[in-house]
Amino acid sequence: MFDSITIVGVGLISGSFSLALKDKALVRNVIGVSRTPESVKKALDLGLIDEALPLAEAVKKSDLIYVAIPVDVTIPVMKQIMDLVTDRQIVADAGSTKGALCASLAGHPMRGRFVAMHPMWGTEYSGPEAAVRDAFRGRACVICEKEKSAPDAVGTMEGLYRDMGMHMVYMDADAHDMHAAYISHISHITSFALANTVLEKEKEESAIFELAGGGFESTVRLAKSNPSMWLPIFMQNREHVLDVLNEHITQLRKFKSCLEKENGEYLRELMENANKIKRIIK
Amino acid sequence: MFDSITIVGVGLISGSFSLALKDKALVRNVIGVSRTPESVKKALDLGLIDEALPLAEAVKKSDLIYVAIPVDVTIPVMKQIMDLVTDRQIVADAGSTKGALCASLAGHPMRGRFVAMHPMWGTEYSGPEAAVRDAFRGRACVICEKEKSAPDAVGTMEGLYRDMGMHMVYMDADAHDMHAAYISHISHITSFALANTVLEKEKEESAIFELAGGGFESTVRLAKSNPSMWLPIFMQNREHVLDVLNEHITQLRKFKSCLEKENGEYLRELMENANKIKRIIK
Repeated sequence: MFDSITIVGVGLISGSFSLALKDKALVRNVIGVSRTPESVKKALDLGLIDEALPLAEAVKKSDLIYVAIPVDVTIPVMKQIMDLVTDRQIVADAGSTKGALCASLAGHPMRGRFVAMHPMWGTEYSGPEAAVRDAFRGRACVICEKEKSAPDAVGTMEGLYRDMGMHMVYMDADAHDMHAAYISHISHITSFALANTVLEKEKEESAIFELAGGGFESTVRLAKSNPSMWLPIFMQNREHVLDVLNEHITQLRKFKSCLEKENGEYLRELMENANKIKRIIK
Repeated sequence: MFDSITIVGVGLISGSFSLALKDKALVRNVIGVSRTPESVKKALDLGLIDEALPLAEAVKKSDLIYVAIPVDVTIPVMKQIMDLVTDRQIVADAGSTKGALCASLAGHPMRGRFVAMHPMWGTEYSGPEAAVRDAFRGRACVICEKEKSAPDAVGTMEGLYRDMGMHMVYMDADAHDMHAAYISHISHITSFALANTVLEKEKEESAIFELAGGGFESTVRLAKSNPSMWLPIFMQNREHVLDVLNEHITQLRKFKSCLEKENGEYLRELMENANKIKRIIK
């Protein structure tokens, strides 16, 4: 059990992480660090944190510092934290990109205290009120550059996430960013673009509202996601994301060409190929 | 209460329709018509139908003939049915396109007995085993060309779907097909294309399997849909679908251009605009 931990950022991921620790009685005191007084108030009201402190003070008092803020601000904030920690503390992040962060910490004398992680869970909502209980169960948690982290730090973090029902997957930071582009970042771009398509073309909002069924809702729901979180992810991972996006546009053009040429045979082939995804997702 | 109804096609929609009628004790006997002996057997086993008969015999015995088969075969089958029905019977369909069917029946002497309908519900699964109880609740049911159907036929069908928890929306057949392209058909194409993108680029299927979270699953789930159902929908509605697909590719290109030029400001604008979909879907 931890005496005190700090969550940097008090939102969907850190709030859910805190709830999971508290529900399992794995921590006595959770300190919140946030630049947004309103979020701090909500996090206190919701019981996600027990107190709020400035970063340096919070770090000093904590066994574990858990960073879950937009990936562009993660890098400078993480450097501040790493300059403060001792050999008895652990630092972990939960960011959706891993390459830039790992590179920025590569030469830090305390690198061993940091565990680069990405619990593969999220929703389209953000902020402390979006935190949910038992959020991570059944999902994968990626650990990057495990060999650069001290074994005790890795072991502790693995234990925590396993207690929350996650299973560990190990890969290097660039492989993570490539896979994340395929199975998460492109889904967000297609949802954002689909929402814009429908908003642009379907002038009768009442028709969308009346008619939209489960299919539309599930393909478009990620379009509700927070731009302040996703803009830095896309920018940091732009090469992998562009690679997948180019392929996706190519695939859509095949459907377009089939429709233009009324080529039903090839259109059926494209759909039958897509059906293979059944093998992979439940 | 109906004495006997016929469902033509024994699958997801007709099976769910039959279950809803049976659960509300609105029908004594449900006759199934299908060219697929295996589906008939499953439908009998699952209690979706009470007996199976050839089309002409089934129509003769039924108060209501409910057609839910791929939209390309709907037109010839519907003509056969309409040539058999009397003034005391009702015919309704559940197809995802309405223009071609309504046009094909426009001059039929029994046109008044037909009600052109589209209950806006479905899943990515098909066949009798995909039928679910209480499927339609809370969704919209579109009625097209209401004025061409006899008031008693419309009233009966409205009553049935309202009993199942649906609300009615009225529009002409072309407006239906346009709206359906925006809020249903394009979602299926983006999902099929996304599945193909990931299957093409992500050679490590184990990585998809391990890492795919809720976001990916929800954007890609429609890619499991049955090509035999969706090919004729896309083909019949190709002009509207092409219109929306062209716009969607244009929207994706905007994301691509932002990433290529590292134009974060415009990328944020695109996402903020997409967020407006929150106003429309829950």
